[in-house]
Amino acid sequence: MNNSLYLSSVRARKPLVHHITNWVTIYDCAQIVKSFGASPVMAHAPEEAAAMASLASSLVLNIGTLTADIIASMKIAARRANEKGIPVVLDVCGAGATRFRDDMVRELLGAARIDIIKGNASEVARVAGEDVRTKGVDAGDVRADTTAVAQRLARDRGCTVAVTGKIDVVADAARVIRVGNGHEMMARVVGTGCMAASVIGTFAAVSPGLAEAAAAGLSCFGIAAERAALRTKERGPAAFKEALLDEAYLLDGPTADGMGRIE
Amino acid sequence: MNNSLYLSSVRARKPLVHHITNWVTIYDCAQIVKSFGASPVMAHAPEEAAAMASLASSLVLNIGTLTADIIASMKIAARRANEKGIPVVLDVCGAGATRFRDDMVRELLGAARIDIIKGNASEVARVAGEDVRTKGVDAGDVRADTTAVAQRLARDRGCTVAVTGKIDVVADAARVIRVGNGHEMMARVVGTGCMAASVIGTFAAVSPGLAEAAAAGLSCFGIAAERAALRTKERGPAAFKEALLDEAYLLDGPTADGMGRIE
Amino acid sequence: MNNSLYLSSVRARKPLVHHITNWVTIYDCAQIVKSFGASPVMAHAPEEAAAMASLASSLVLNIGTLTADIIASMKIAARRANEKGIPVVLDVCGAGATRFRDDMVRELLGAARIDIIKGNASEVARVAGEDVRTKGVDAGDVRADTTAVAQRLARDRGCTVAVTGKIDVVADAARVIRVGNGHEMMARVVGTGCMAASVIGTFAAVSPGLAEAAAAGLSCFGIAAERAALRTKERGPAAFKEALLDEAYLLDGPTADGMGRIE
Repeated sequence: MNNSLYLSSVRARKPLVHHITNWVTIYDCAQIVKSFGASPVMAHAPEEAAAMASLASSLVLNIGTLTADIIASMKIAARRANEKGIPVVLDVCGAGATRFRDDMVRELLGAARIDIIKGNASEVARVAGEDVRTKGVDAGDVRADTTAVAQRLARDRGCTVAVTGKIDVVADAARVIRVGNGHEMMARVVGTGCMAASVIGTFAAVSPGLAEAAAAGLSCFGIAAERAALRTKERGPAAFKEALLDEAYLLDGPTADGMGRIE
Repeated sequence: MNNSLYLSSVRARKPLVHHITNWVTIYDCAQIVKSFGASPVMAHAPEEAAAMASLASSLVLNIGTLTADIIASMKIAARRANEKGIPVVLDVCGAGATRFRDDMVRELLGAARIDIIKGNASEVARVAGEDVRTKGVDAGDVRADTTAVAQRLARDRGCTVAVTGKIDVVADAARVIRVGNGHEMMARVVGTGCMAASVIGTFAAVSPGLAEAAAAGLSCFGIAAERAALRTKERGPAAFKEALLDEAYLLDGPTADGMGRIE
Repeated sequence: MNNSLYLSSVRARKPLVHHITNWVTIYDCAQIVKSFGASPVMAHAPEEAAAMASLASSLVLNIGTLTADIIASMKIAARRANEKGIPVVLDVCGAGATRFRDDMVRELLGAARIDIIKGNASEVARVAGEDVRTKGVDAGDVRADTTAVAQRLARDRGCTVAVTGKIDVVADAARVIRVGNGHEMMARVVGTGCMAASVIGTFAAVSPGLAEAAAAGLSCFGIAAERAALRTKERGPAAFKEALLDEAYLLDGPTADGMGRIE
């Protein structure tokens, strides 16, 4: 299935994408989902976490500004998502920065089936058990080979793993997909990593093939970034982010297929 | 009273508009109030909810990312607003999506006088007791006639009801006002519904006639949207939202009156 | 040390700036830090407040949407920052608006060493013990001379005090620095005050001289605002804010020195 088929499926079905996420990039996560044509909902109260997950077609969890309360709601929502059979994406934002984050990621992974683990190279390496340090929420130095680490984690947990970077790597037990779309300006903007997880959740909501959906989502998001960079050349990161949200909305099928760099 | 009189009154008096709102669109709610010339304050701690309401000229409540704690603070603030005699606007964001939301709306409506209930068609229908489902925070299908539902709810509760949509409907016990301003791009942007409630709170802060104030606010907000769409034609939802916040700031009296579609 | 040296030091060292801040402007605080070339992290869970502060080069606290829980985490982070010897900036956002805010500011000042107190004229006057009222989070009327109040507070507490306004005033026990950069559009945008505190934290992270660092930060931020106003002339506050975040990113050393108005 190519990018344009995912894109038209998202726009036709307008899946509800339930988020329990952080307070920094919560708006952009919602808007990127809406820009791609789906319907975001952010709801973290424990009293409605399961009910909202029941209405949704996918669940996106992001631990950027985690607290114990939020983790508790995430568990409730993830278990309900598991029962319902909708995909659960976990952005392991900041894993490797503090012990609390590592502990909470472990707790989430133990409490429910996480279908797609998403992070940058150092975050994913940490979740895979490597001895790396994440600098706050920005990627730290990683010595290990990202592809090998992603594939090992995917096999160990029987899930899909998406590692964002210059080349995005998506791995499951059976294969590795590399996505070459994107632009260096993404690293200058707060929230592109979080948005990537939301996009993965959006595309996974319309397809049973999670690795392919994640790769298509990252490709379309990366293409929007490439076009945004072209449009806003040298204007700076805030202009770029605005254009990124707009180019996701404007992206058409032929462009999504023609510019896609997935292998 | 026409749009320009409301607008100049907001700009001259710069009312303080106290919000207890959601974490997704909290920035845009604050900025739209500031763009129109008033002074927003967002404060949700139970220890200061009453004190902040005491300083304010109106109170805007929005349950987008409600929790039990936030609802408790809303009750405190609303009761103080009632004592002080300032208008209380409740955006019933997501009513009809989960039972928790329905319960919490009922609790708020029982705990204090809500002067203006604001929502989209399915949210308001749900609050009025119709059997409808809201899709997350986006409007679901509504079979009932919006105007009739709004008017019934307004009469039942002795309050003003504002329903946003292609045509906004504002009803109180005595009359129905329709506002034809706005633009379809508003539905592509996360937060325009929340901003509409904040604008209603801003305009209601300077006028005893709540239905007229709500209609004038929705009209001015809709005009800003029309001008934003003209300015950003085909650039996408993020460019549109930026222009919407700017056009609210730039809107002048003659334009507000000339473009107003209120009946 | 001139503006360009601070700027190049921030960009070379990319300090991690830990924030515990409010939910309204949290995104813009993070992005302005990133735009200037540093690395923001927002983390407020009590379980990781100390660990995150341990990784950081400075700590920025902002009470805009304070709750008792958040204040508790701020104390933990500030004490750890004190142990580690990194600067702690406190934005006394809304001090003077409610008794709760005044109490919580007093508690924070008593619980840890605050290296830089930042606020607008009425907020700082209130912290200094003057009988003033803050209008929500916007500056109220202040009769006392801002420079004298800032200097007295700085001497009383042995800290640096930064007061933002048309002319920014930075005082410590030994001296007063005035910064003439900035633009009136800053007052039309929600969050420029909060961003100013984040910029102070960013510049203080790379320099032992706190007053000079605060002044350089406010000067560079003000220059970015001047350039943003030039670029977006008459387009409105949202376009201005986007350009402000971009001009911080684009600011080069010669411009930062040439346009700097520090005395």
